Amino acid sequence: MACWPNVRTMSDSTDAESVTEEIMLATYRALCTHGYPNTSIAKIADEFEKSKSLLYYHYDDKEDLLEDFLAFLLDRLETRLDEVDRDDPEEHLLAIIDLLLPPEMDDEDGQFRRAVLEMRSQAPYHEGYRAQFERSDELFLTELVSVVERGIEAEEFRPVNAEEAAEFIFSAANGAVERGVTLGDTDVIERNREIIRGYVESQLLRYA
Amino acid sequence: MACWPNVRTMSDSTDAESVTEEIMLATYRALCTHGYPNTSIAKIADEFEKSKSLLYYHYDDKEDLLEDFLAFLLDRLETRLDEVDRDDPEEHLLAIIDLLLPPEMDDEDGQFRRAVLEMRSQAPYHEGYRAQFERSDELFLTELVSVVERGIEAEEFRPVNAEEAAEFIFSAANGAVERGVTLGDTDVIERNREIIRGYVESQLLRYA
Repeated sequence: MACWPNVRTMSDSTDAESVTEEIMLATYRALCTHGYPNTSIAKIADEFEKSKSLLYYHYDDKEDLLEDFLAFLLDRLETRLDEVDRDDPEEHLLAIIDLLLPPEMDDEDGQFRRAVLEMRSQAPYHEGYRAQFERSDELFLTELVSVVERGIEAEEFRPVNAEEAAEFIFSAANGAVERGVTLGDTDVIERNREIIRGYVESQLLRYA
Repeated sequence: MACWPNVRTMSDSTDAESVTEEIMLATYRALCTHGYPNTSIAKIADEFEKSKSLLYYHYDDKEDLLEDFLAFLLDRLETRLDEVDRDDPEEHLLAIIDLLLPPEMDDEDGQFRRAVLEMRSQAPYHEGYRAQFERSDELFLTELVSVVERGIEAEEFRPVNAEEAAEFIFSAANGAVERGVTLGDTDVIERNREIIRGYVESQLLRYA
């Protein structure tokens, strides 16, 4: 799950949605502050601004809460992907690459992505986490394949194998995020975004 | 640290080396069986075939032992990289790609790489781990850049930007391993090896 919509900006919402959103925001804050292994229900409760009993009423298990948190983020990611301007295949593809490798990541973004990578590394042991990461990869890959296919149909892109081009971009973006967040080096992410954009320009664009 | 030399085949060695190697082999087995978070000094001692007090004499801290384990693997990786046939740049490059994305990974390879990814996800919190992963990335990138440069000099490869081509290949390989091991899907690794080989053939080879 390489890309995370900004959890910090929450929408207007009804009361029930608002409780869920505030639990999710508390989870986000706890993960940024403590990392995954040291995040507990108690630490999430410390970040929760409403009554703690309300949190414990909904969740008594860290894994259940984090599974819902991953699902919540994925719903937001789906919305973000839907909002991307789809008129021009090149612009659309570059916008997805920016979601995978966000420009100007700050420390908090880095801490958060680190926590997500820690959760991903636990996916082999948690069926629930794994299902969410599978859904996230599928979502990105489907979107990438579809934009490359549209570009080819519109004769803006060369007639490449869309599945292969999509997977190459996706793998390179994930590898760059992994390296950048584990070594605490956002230059890796900047550099790889430029490399992938260069690949799009020189290998996909028909008339480059 | 995307690629690991086979720890299962240990060399002939002196007694002191042999104790170290057996501690490393016990560590390897414990990581495969229990994953990183559940590996403790006690569990490594259970896998150790010599006296447990000998192990505790050398290490009383899991992190220290695992840091030495990463360094040990890196030394072996360096040897493996040195042993690769360097006569032909294309063959050399494909051999490095096979080290990054090994053909025919079995369950044990998968379990081990999973444990390495877990350690990598903890690198932000462990200076010692981070230093080893930095060394590993550096080792692979330097090797990749150098083979691409040699291929360009020999006029076997097109005059691409060697640093960018090397980093693109390295990122894509790492992203594929991350996805493959966390989702337990070795097809991802097979598929991405072919995609990266296709990139080498169509984008690097001058006369393809």
